[in-house]
Amino acid sequence: MELVTLDDISDAARRIAPDIVRTPLLSAAWGDPRRPLWLKPENLQPIGAFKIRGAFNALGRLDPDTRARGVVAYSSGNHAQAVAYAAAAYGVAAHIVMPEETPAVKVEATRGHGADVVLCGPGERERTAAELVETTGAVLIPPFDHPDIIAGQGTIGIEIAEDLADLAAVLIPVSGGGLASGIGTAIRALCPNAKVLAVEPELAADTAESLARGSVVEWPVAKRNRTIADGLRSTPSELTFAHLQRVVDDVITVSEDEIRAAVRELALKAHLVAEPSGAVALAGYRKADLPDGPAVAVVSGGNIEPTQLTAILADAQ
Amino acid sequence: MELVTLDDISDAARRIAPDIVRTPLLSAAWGDPRRPLWLKPENLQPIGAFKIRGAFNALGRLDPDTRARGVVAYSSGNHAQAVAYAAAAYGVAAHIVMPEETPAVKVEATRGHGADVVLCGPGERERTAAELVETTGAVLIPPFDHPDIIAGQGTIGIEIAEDLADLAAVLIPVSGGGLASGIGTAIRALCPNAKVLAVEPELAADTAESLARGSVVEWPVAKRNRTIADGLRSTPSELTFAHLQRVVDDVITVSEDEIRAAVRELALKAHLVAEPSGAVALAGYRKADLPDGPAVAVVSGGNIEPTQLTAILADAQ
Repeated sequence: MELVTLDDISDAARRIAPDIVRTPLLSAAWGDPRRPLWLKPENLQPIGAFKIRGAFNALGRLDPDTRARGVVAYSSGNHAQAVAYAAAAYGVAAHIVMPEETPAVKVEATRGHGADVVLCGPGERERTAAELVETTGAVLIPPFDHPDIIAGQGTIGIEIAEDLADLAAVLIPVSGGGLASGIGTAIRALCPNAKVLAVEPELAADTAESLARGSVVEWPVAKRNRTIADGLRSTPSELTFAHLQRVVDDVITVSEDEIRAAVRELALKAHLVAEPSGAVALAGYRKADLPDGPAVAVVSGGNIEPTQLTAILADAQ
Repeated sequence: MELVTLDDISDAARRIAPDIVRTPLLSAAWGDPRRPLWLKPENLQPIGAFKIRGAFNALGRLDPDTRARGVVAYSSGNHAQAVAYAAAAYGVAAHIVMPEETPAVKVEATRGHGADVVLCGPGERERTAAELVETTGAVLIPPFDHPDIIAGQGTIGIEIAEDLADLAAVLIPVSGGGLASGIGTAIRALCPNAKVLAVEPELAADTAESLARGSVVEWPVAKRNRTIADGLRSTPSELTFAHLQRVVDDVITVSEDEIRAAVRELALKAHLVAEPSGAVALAGYRKADLPDGPAVAVVSGGNIEPTQLTAILADAQ
């Protein structure tokens, strides 16, 4: 299997530079002084999540005639909005397949980027997407299982290495594995002494189990869906798992309470609104046995329901 | 009276570069399409506010022997933490005078940066600070009434001009006037066609009245203290007022409800936690009669009490 290389990621960085925010590293002075904490706030991207990087790279890599036929994606989350946003920027059609039970606010946000939203019943999203590809001639943009997506997300790793040459550890949320595969690949190449740590909820710790066993273990959907980190309920593909095996040193698992505490800490100390999935890397920082030296926690997204944010903030008062 | 120049601000930018976050401009795609909205998130600075820029410039401009005697500041807010933080970075003592009624969390935060906090009774902070200067030989760092502070805050204007050459308008919170004086001076020089708009609460609209009359009008403290924007309860000095008269095109005043709505909008759409004072520029964007073209709202700070943030977020649900 061919893995994504640093060259692929560097190409992606050049390709997407005009369309993304070059997020700064933010010093979180209240961290452990021996392992100074830095935050990479990807919740500040357009659409509020890192997914925009992979989407722009995947669309940018299509040849113009193919791209002109439009794109298809299935997602109820940030990937939907990322593909819709990138398609609008390229002036091509986006057909986004979402489950019928998707909250109206997310459907509206996706339509707000000009996308054609197609609602489907449970378990029908892949078939619906395949039909759309067939009838419209549009190209499927997968959420993580594609080298262009992995390379796009990996651009975060290049930026971290540019800003913090003495990096000792990077903490990355893991689910489908596109983000951790990309960042891990870049950091392995550019900061070979740094630890690459994936972080996932205990309630969806399929990646920890898979890496320990050496092969992908599928957890039942209902089991993974127990976590409030709704962006971390996927399982790695063969492609991302092969990357994770190669570039991840360890997986840290965190509890639901630790995730909520990290959302609070980000809001009240770092002035960043993160969704639960976006806060797990900080929860991992609190829990991991880290080497001395600077550590970066990737704050991957900020799209939290207002009622959930209020409830989490009120919880500590 | 000698006013701060673009050269002073450029010098400040070089001086403070290693110590501050070069904040990105964030596209707020949900703004009015004819006046695309960009946010300058100064709430992401260390200590959570732009005040760090002026503090580092003022301390950096002191000659090393003078600086070694330490610094004094009086403030219950972000200036206290900014001076304490900058003094710690320079390895010199900071004596911070705070009113006895300052919330414990702010006193602790200031002490957390290694400062010596001196509590004082009502109306005694200037006398207490003067005594500290006398007894310790330390230098007073004023919150806004000093060219080095104005030049430091003005570095935000240089960054905006670098990132958005076709700027049509910039919206800046105004209180003591250091921030608006500095940014306004930079923008006048670098983007001469852009409108410079100061924004203040209706309940503390002394600057609007002063600029309309052509001289500083003091509002009674009790009247200014009605606003929830607790960082915007000061009145310009002669020095800042002279700058404001020269560089500000207009003052927009906003209601308390408009300020709360802006705090909510920043949290839920931009994923930024702002204090009420930090959100007024966005409230001004919603209300002002702006020219067509890109507009920047300066999000000046994020240090909001958890209970206040929760209450404001819950309000709209």
